[in-house]
Amino acid sequence: MVKQVFLESATLEKALEILFGRLDELGLQALSAETVRVIDTLGRVAAAPVFAKYSSPFYHSAAMDGYAVRFADTFSAAETAPLLLKNGSEALYVDTGDPMPEGFNAVIMIEDVNLAGGHIEIYQPVTPYQNVRTIGEDIVATELIIPENHIIRAIDIGAMLASGNLEIRVRKKTKLAIIPTGTEIIEPEKVKEHPPVPPEIIEYNSAMLQGLALDLNMEPIRLPIVKDDLEAIRKALYDASLLSDIVVINAGAGRGSEDFTLEAIRSLGEVLVNGAAIKPGKPVIIGIINNKPVFGIPGYPVSAYITFQLFVRPVASRFSALTAKAGELIQAVISRQIASSLGIDEFIRVKVGVVGDKQIATPVGRGAGLLMSLVRADGIIKIPANSEGLSAGHKVTVELLRNKEEIKNTIVCIGSHDNTLDLLANSIKKNYPDYSLSSAHVGSMGGLMALKRGEAHCAGTHLLDEYSGEYNVPFIKQFFPDRKMVLVNLVYRQQGLLIKKDNPKNISGFEDLLRDDVLFINRQPGSGTRLLLDKYLKEKSISPSMIKGYEKDEYTHMAVASAVLTGLADTGLAIYSSAKALDLNFIPVASERYDIAVPYEFMETEMLHILFKIIREDDEFRSMVQSLGGYDTSDMGKVLFEG
Amino acid sequence: MVKQVFLESATLEKALEILFGRLDELGLQALSAETVRVIDTLGRVAAAPVFAKYSSPFYHSAAMDGYAVRFADTFSAAETAPLLLKNGSEALYVDTGDPMPEGFNAVIMIEDVNLAGGHIEIYQPVTPYQNVRTIGEDIVATELIIPENHIIRAIDIGAMLASGNLEIRVRKKTKLAIIPTGTEIIEPEKVKEHPPVPPEIIEYNSAMLQGLALDLNMEPIRLPIVKDDLEAIRKALYDASLLSDIVVINAGAGRGSEDFTLEAIRSLGEVLVNGAAIKPGKPVIIGIINNKPVFGIPGYPVSAYITFQLFVRPVASRFSALTAKAGELIQAVISRQIASSLGIDEFIRVKVGVVGDKQIATPVGRGAGLLMSLVRADGIIKIPANSEGLSAGHKVTVELLRNKEEIKNTIVCIGSHDNTLDLLANSIKKNYPDYSLSSAHVGSMGGLMALKRGEAHCAGTHLLDEYSGEYNVPFIKQFFPDRKMVLVNLVYRQQGLLIKKDNPKNISGFEDLLRDDVLFINRQPGSGTRLLLDKYLKEKSISPSMIKGYEKDEYTHMAVASAVLTGLADTGLAIYSSAKALDLNFIPVASERYDIAVPYEFMETEMLHILFKIIREDDEFRSMVQSLGGYDTSDMGKVLFEG
Repeated sequence: MVKQVFLESATLEKALEILFGRLDELGLQALSAETVRVIDTLGRVAAAPVFAKYSSPFYHSAAMDGYAVRFADTFSAAETAPLLLKNGSEALYVDTGDPMPEGFNAVIMIEDVNLAGGHIEIYQPVTPYQNVRTIGEDIVATELIIPENHIIRAIDIGAMLASGNLEIRVRKKTKLAIIPTGTEIIEPEKVKEHPPVPPEIIEYNSAMLQGLALDLNMEPIRLPIVKDDLEAIRKALYDASLLSDIVVINAGAGRGSEDFTLEAIRSLGEVLVNGAAIKPGKPVIIGIINNKPVFGIPGYPVSAYITFQLFVRPVASRFSALTAKAGELIQAVISRQIASSLGIDEFIRVKVGVVGDKQIATPVGRGAGLLMSLVRADGIIKIPANSEGLSAGHKVTVELLRNKEEIKNTIVCIGSHDNTLDLLANSIKKNYPDYSLSSAHVGSMGGLMALKRGEAHCAGTHLLDEYSGEYNVPFIKQFFPDRKMVLVNLVYRQQGLLIKKDNPKNISGFEDLLRDDVLFINRQPGSGTRLLLDKYLKEKSISPSMIKGYEKDEYTHMAVASAVLTGLADTGLAIYSSAKALDLNFIPVASERYDIAVPYEFMETEMLHILFKIIREDDEFRSMVQSLGGYDTSDMGKVLFEG
Repeated sequence: MVKQVFLESATLEKALEILFGRLDELGLQALSAETVRVIDTLGRVAAAPVFAKYSSPFYHSAAMDGYAVRFADTFSAAETAPLLLKNGSEALYVDTGDPMPEGFNAVIMIEDVNLAGGHIEIYQPVTPYQNVRTIGEDIVATELIIPENHIIRAIDIGAMLASGNLEIRVRKKTKLAIIPTGTEIIEPEKVKEHPPVPPEIIEYNSAMLQGLALDLNMEPIRLPIVKDDLEAIRKALYDASLLSDIVVINAGAGRGSEDFTLEAIRSLGEVLVNGAAIKPGKPVIIGIINNKPVFGIPGYPVSAYITFQLFVRPVASRFSALTAKAGELIQAVISRQIASSLGIDEFIRVKVGVVGDKQIATPVGRGAGLLMSLVRADGIIKIPANSEGLSAGHKVTVELLRNKEEIKNTIVCIGSHDNTLDLLANSIKKNYPDYSLSSAHVGSMGGLMALKRGEAHCAGTHLLDEYSGEYNVPFIKQFFPDRKMVLVNLVYRQQGLLIKKDNPKNISGFEDLLRDDVLFINRQPGSGTRLLLDKYLKEKSISPSMIKGYEKDEYTHMAVASAVLTGLADTGLAIYSSAKALDLNFIPVASERYDIAVPYEFMETEMLHILFKIIREDDEFRSMVQSLGGYDTSDMGKVLFEG
């Protein structure tokens, strides 16, 4: 039944229109105000204009060390006819900052007078209020310091206190109740007692949602986990609506929990939206309970993130009378075609690379369950409902997940995956906090293609030429006939067959892949590892069609290792370090050369200097690589080809 | 003596080099780490890489509602030859999210099977792990979640918890001790007891510095006010150096306090820099006490702000292993020539207007004591030491004090000052939080010039043509012969002579300006009020040279009123509302028309729609204007000229 409703789900635009229309009808606008000490108002929103109570400065004071005088007494002074003023009555000594003595209205700098007995001698008349810091020079009593709805900054706090405002009215913080639900959901702390066991699911969405709420200056209230039980959910929703301004209920991964959310909201108030034509995030539910907006947020982490930003964020902004705050936006060009369904607003995670003078957005994983793809992404683009997709080269607006400077200083490495890239990323960030390494894993071929299209600064590559037996160079020459390229060695590494510890299926080599009871896991086409496999199969005259699982592929060595560890497959070809990381057995097949390919023109950039400095000189990095196992670092950082 | 040292003050570059060189020598790098619960790490800096402890998901689970099967059992199924699998042994019902039963490795969607007695009937073979969410699909155990020095975001918190990380090492927060000094300084709270009296000075710099520290994610520790006493300052500095990572001592406005700071730092540690060739902020002192950097920050608020950002901010960044964080930067073109001294890095506050397709930076007040000019500014530009100034049209980089969106949505109104502009600014921000009105007061003529140069969207103007007796129109025709312009009335307002309450000098009209004991305060050349004055003086055949104070001018009505209130002058020409605000007597001189001049092409912009909507329709605005006194709002919002 719910599924049917989803099919009729509202467009994003319509869903927002329904939501805000109802908030208007209910009179749910900016929250009311509270009085707060000015010193505590940083980042708060003024709920009323603040006017100066006193002027600043509020008395005339000397702006110089010297003598206070009455300007009218000094008219006759001249270089040729110095004037004597009686010290103590016609002239009074003042330090900078001293209040001007009553009736005195100018200061003569100490350097400009001569002391002569009980008098001072001056050589020119003074002008009124010369060298005097006058009342209201900075702030005049009654003037506007900040308007209503201004977001208060440190300098505003200074000005408010300077003008005698100690407490002001600010908009209350929006209270966001977060209810995690799901019978199998456990608090993260539980893993302290024992590693999680099926069917347990570690609850982490609420922590992410709390963080997003704090980013918006809301006050998150994380409520206890609620089991998948209609009455329990009803009670939790009702109670939450009483103690907050907005309620978020997170479906968790529990089965059918959306049904309960829908039913619970309907029975306690009204459902405004049940499903939206967005991806990810389709099963979102929006309702009202006790005059409070309630959001049923889907359980997959990326769906939870997207629906929060699309629906909760603008309501929070309305409640604090702020602009709907988005992340920083930049323009970029997409690197490859993206298909999307008509009628659905789709949100795509992208990596953004600043390569040469181009800002390039490259789509990454689209699964709603892939939180790491969000962590690793640089931003999000929207493909509107009226579009079937975007072609390569299309200009897009990216809402950034990291700051722009960070992205500008990111070395974009697209290509083959190797576990040392994680360590390299860490060493760069550790030693040069301004810089980052972003690596996307599309295989060696994919990396060279990315370089060719100008999407990356460098590419990890380990392509063995069958005929010459040479690594990488023949491919570089073929791919870049007219471009000067450099190959720098990163490592030599052991490739081999990963098998479960203790080798339960008794696998000893490629021949075992022909067995009916052996399931293989492959790497994606274009990866060097797959080419290596194909070379060995050819040598051994094994047809790929005879291998069960040949068509199922993964994008990283660790994913292959994980598949073997967890029984998804019995064996796969991958590097030694991935076997070691997950405690698998390893049958060595080949030692191969893994290089970093760089277009020559990037070699002299600051970014690549840093990359190669770490590779060549950072002993900590080198020893961490060695401790991964299976790596030979003897040529690490050496230029092996240039041309 | 101190003065001499200032004359030899270090360049900004040199001062930073000395400071950071010494920090290097002392080994003062990023602060050490502390262990923090992951849920509390938002915005913190990772002090070590975080790797996944568990995979996520950590067990295979059904991705659909349906039947778990063994894929090897299904090979023979076909549309033409349906296969029966025994329910309970060969096929097990699973809901989405359920762990896969041991030995089962694929799920057939419920829609794709027929229930037949104790069997399910299927029509095609399944592929391995079809409809299964596999272990590590999101996160593979041992993979890098975030590198060292990463600033933690909400999504990172989610991913760390998902991968079983409950506590991580983060960089300690930098503790910033702030010591306000000055014998006359009082705590702001004191004004609750009685209005401040000379020589008291309300202490507000420390509150601003605390806010700036919080902006940088530091932990500010505001210490009690210290009198101007060497021993007291020594003790305060010493104690502060023990409980913090950075010490800031703020000279306050107290006389000679810099001397004590210098002497105290020297006696407790070492002085690295005594004075820098910067403006404002020259008297900054930098030293080391107990291995902690100590900054003697000048007392003028803008100097305090600038020296904090120039020196304390980069040290704080180093301590948290972050990029030296600046405000948002934008490019703009300066609207007029700015002179600056060779050899001094000068920091100029600017208003930034986005007018048409140009981003224009217009310098505002340069006084170090003018905090409000910082509050009202949009950003700061630097004129480097090797420049004698910038010519109009020069491209500059502006470090913003407000966010870019806000600036884009700012109505720039440059021209004559009127007290209703404060109310208008407030009403706009109140009703349209995304929009702001920024008004700069350069007089009616200056406003029209600004429009002509494309620096403003509109200008307040009240220029009376002596010959025709008509307001504004003749000037518009003369200034914009080829451009279509619109004049919209804001108010008619009373101009008159302000005099002290009870009229102690017995002033009754312009003739009194000729008296020897009457000091006048003027408005700046080009202001409509000054033109009005000159017209009346001409009619009465009074020569400006006969008026004492004619040459001293202020930029706003409120500043004139303040000058009269505080005895800076005996009288000045200004609008009634300024007299009323400061409780002065008022001798009416003229009722004048105050219009808003707008280039026609801006009339249809969203910003000006909002401006005129408030002017025409906001009853609250209208009644607030009326309550200021002296205003006739009968034509408010009417178009009085178009052409």
